[in-house]
Amino acid sequence: MLFMGYLVSMTQISKSPYKGCRDLFPKEKREQDYLFSKMKEIASLYAYEPYDGPMLELVDLYKAKSGEELINDQIYSFTDRGNRFVAIRPEMTPTVARMIAQIHRATPKPMRWYSIPNLMRYERPQKGRLREHWQFNCDIFGGPEVLSEMEVLELVKDLLKHFGANEKHFSILINDRAIVNELFLNVLKVDEQTSYKLYKIIDKSKKLPYEKLEALMDDVLSAEQKSNLKKYLALDNFKDAFEFLNIESPLKQLVEKVEDTDLYKYLKYDPSIVRGLDYYTGIVFEVFDLHPDNRRAICGGGSYANLLEIFKESPLPGVGFGLGDVTLKDFLITHELMPDFNQPDDAILVTFQASEFESKALKISREFRESGFGVESNLKPINVSKAFQLAEKKNYSYLVLIEDEQFVFKDLVNKKEIRSNSINDEILDLLS
Amino acid sequence: MLFMGYLVSMTQISKSPYKGCRDLFPKEKREQDYLFSKMKEIASLYAYEPYDGPMLELVDLYKAKSGEELINDQIYSFTDRGNRFVAIRPEMTPTVARMIAQIHRATPKPMRWYSIPNLMRYERPQKGRLREHWQFNCDIFGGPEVLSEMEVLELVKDLLKHFGANEKHFSILINDRAIVNELFLNVLKVDEQTSYKLYKIIDKSKKLPYEKLEALMDDVLSAEQKSNLKKYLALDNFKDAFEFLNIESPLKQLVEKVEDTDLYKYLKYDPSIVRGLDYYTGIVFEVFDLHPDNRRAICGGGSYANLLEIFKESPLPGVGFGLGDVTLKDFLITHELMPDFNQPDDAILVTFQASEFESKALKISREFRESGFGVESNLKPINVSKAFQLAEKKNYSYLVLIEDEQFVFKDLVNKKEIRSNSINDEILDLLS
Repeated sequence: MLFMGYLVSMTQISKSPYKGCRDLFPKEKREQDYLFSKMKEIASLYAYEPYDGPMLELVDLYKAKSGEELINDQIYSFTDRGNRFVAIRPEMTPTVARMIAQIHRATPKPMRWYSIPNLMRYERPQKGRLREHWQFNCDIFGGPEVLSEMEVLELVKDLLKHFGANEKHFSILINDRAIVNELFLNVLKVDEQTSYKLYKIIDKSKKLPYEKLEALMDDVLSAEQKSNLKKYLALDNFKDAFEFLNIESPLKQLVEKVEDTDLYKYLKYDPSIVRGLDYYTGIVFEVFDLHPDNRRAICGGGSYANLLEIFKESPLPGVGFGLGDVTLKDFLITHELMPDFNQPDDAILVTFQASEFESKALKISREFRESGFGVESNLKPINVSKAFQLAEKKNYSYLVLIEDEQFVFKDLVNKKEIRSNSINDEILDLLS
Repeated sequence: MLFMGYLVSMTQISKSPYKGCRDLFPKEKREQDYLFSKMKEIASLYAYEPYDGPMLELVDLYKAKSGEELINDQIYSFTDRGNRFVAIRPEMTPTVARMIAQIHRATPKPMRWYSIPNLMRYERPQKGRLREHWQFNCDIFGGPEVLSEMEVLELVKDLLKHFGANEKHFSILINDRAIVNELFLNVLKVDEQTSYKLYKIIDKSKKLPYEKLEALMDDVLSAEQKSNLKKYLALDNFKDAFEFLNIESPLKQLVEKVEDTDLYKYLKYDPSIVRGLDYYTGIVFEVFDLHPDNRRAICGGGSYANLLEIFKESPLPGVGFGLGDVTLKDFLITHELMPDFNQPDDAILVTFQASEFESKALKISREFRESGFGVESNLKPINVSKAFQLAEKKNYSYLVLIEDEQFVFKDLVNKKEIRSNSINDEILDLLS
């Protein structure tokens, strides 16, 4: 092929999107916009302010802030033309930490922020896990610990309720890193290296077959330690958890505060929630889909004692979560809570039946737009039956026909029509 | 620093965003959301459907579709872990072409699509040019040429008008590649190699000093050719342009059709608009800022005969443009058309004055949210004067105080207050 005088490759160009990424055609984009609009709605109800950051960050930022797994295997990193080692953002927390570090001294606390960035991780694509997704991130920084946790949990619960979900569809599985630390330090009495391994084992404990889990425990624990770890992993309610480890955990205060609220029926103690590779220090939680076909976490979060540690700034605690658009959509589809977005948004289809009425059709299109209505202006003359077919195919409720000096406005739903020379009150009534 | 038992780098982590990218703090993000909302509003008025695609594409796609300059110097490319040579999208047209190629056979024409993707180009950052920006892309595919061009021009004109701009603020400079081709083939009679060089010279002709422009022309043209090129470059209105090159250009038809519309006063013939490195074949245009402090193009577009050529699909013509958020914002600021987004969106600030009223405050916050109102729930007891200070600082119109069993709802703008036990009609009246 000749392009601007230069010969470029004739190899067959692929029509497929890059592996693990999505082409969002209008139906899929309308679906995503629906998810985004509910996210923004909830953020606004809780007075969270929007922010966003760069698609690229220096890899050093992730090295300091994230778990090693992410840095080694899951990050899209490369060296730019200025010899900077950069990565496409795999998550938003390091970016928001960097931003908050710039302004936290001069900003009243708490700060409530949200964003919906596109992120990339180098994953093996599978259901609910793609290489690129959009993630709703909400954080409250510098608020009192327990009430901040409560607010964030209520926010995520209300978000899912706004989509039509309830306690039959999801639970919020919750734990406290203080409890896990107590277990490691004072019950199992293991060193930091072993703690790190145990985080990974506990994290996988619900997914692994019994024998495999036993073998992993045997590798790092004595018989007595193992027995205690198993007692811990068997905990399945707040009361037993708080009795097993006799500490004043913030989770206990949280549970007491929410007992008489709507949130309580969604909360479930789960010892396997540790989010070991994340930077949480307080509560950790996952929103869990209760449907037998989709039993998985759709969202994770928790509280952290110091967002700004890597910037050597004064400590700033926070609570936050991330909810991906892919898992959220899977959740909604599984529970039949996803509306149908096959059709475009409603608009007025303006057609003309002979080329002499072209400029009249364009004029009427403009007038409807000036009145605030969406108009698809058909750009070629078509006969009346074709016009109806087109309106039906695109699911339009309103059709304009122009066969003579007047135009006919048709309300296809209510089977009414008005002949007129201009947009009048009768027509506006039908449109309202 | 110890992280999960591993020692990570103690080098100072930068708080700055990656070069040429922006941190969008809440004020900046609200500004961007304002731009996006107007873009979506206009897209909806013209019945354009939303889409999006992956942040990464195979480099082959850009090699086939884009100009060589972009591929060589301006693209963020790297090899992924699966040995694919990929790039962060620098523009949206190759992606949309790839997507359309998948579905165009089964989809009624014309198709009207828009998106607002984040894009990256490796540029030297300067005013109005950053490495990352968001770009409003609108295209109509498979419509009749002249009316499609007219629609797209009206859409972009209406977009800027929705921001409050008018013909004193911007012009649409327009040309036709058919005219430029006629000039090259039948007036100057130059070969393809020289045409390529001339595209670049014409593109820069308004920006270069006179002597430099002369020198560049002398390099490739004879005295007679040069004289003709200068005659061409002196054209400054449609009539002269159509007379100079006696061809039936689609631009001539377009101008005839728009003569009695609002669009006409924005259109201006400009021979230097060629968009030589792009894939346009018909009209080419740029929206030009008329302000003396910001005389520059804020948007470019045009029409192309075959979007799908590189996919070896049947020809599909289109018309489209891209408008970046950075240049748009500069334009609006220059003309003082950018509203003030310093303050968060209005919400109700709910405060309590003694810790015993904490749960009451949370309950009232929940009730307001259930009624659809945004609430910032203050999570610590504060005295009344602090509560007023906070409401003023954050520019809130409504404040709730709880000093006893009842709460006081204050309308700070209208200086009214209501004491109540629950949200009642009087309060809802003040909020509406």
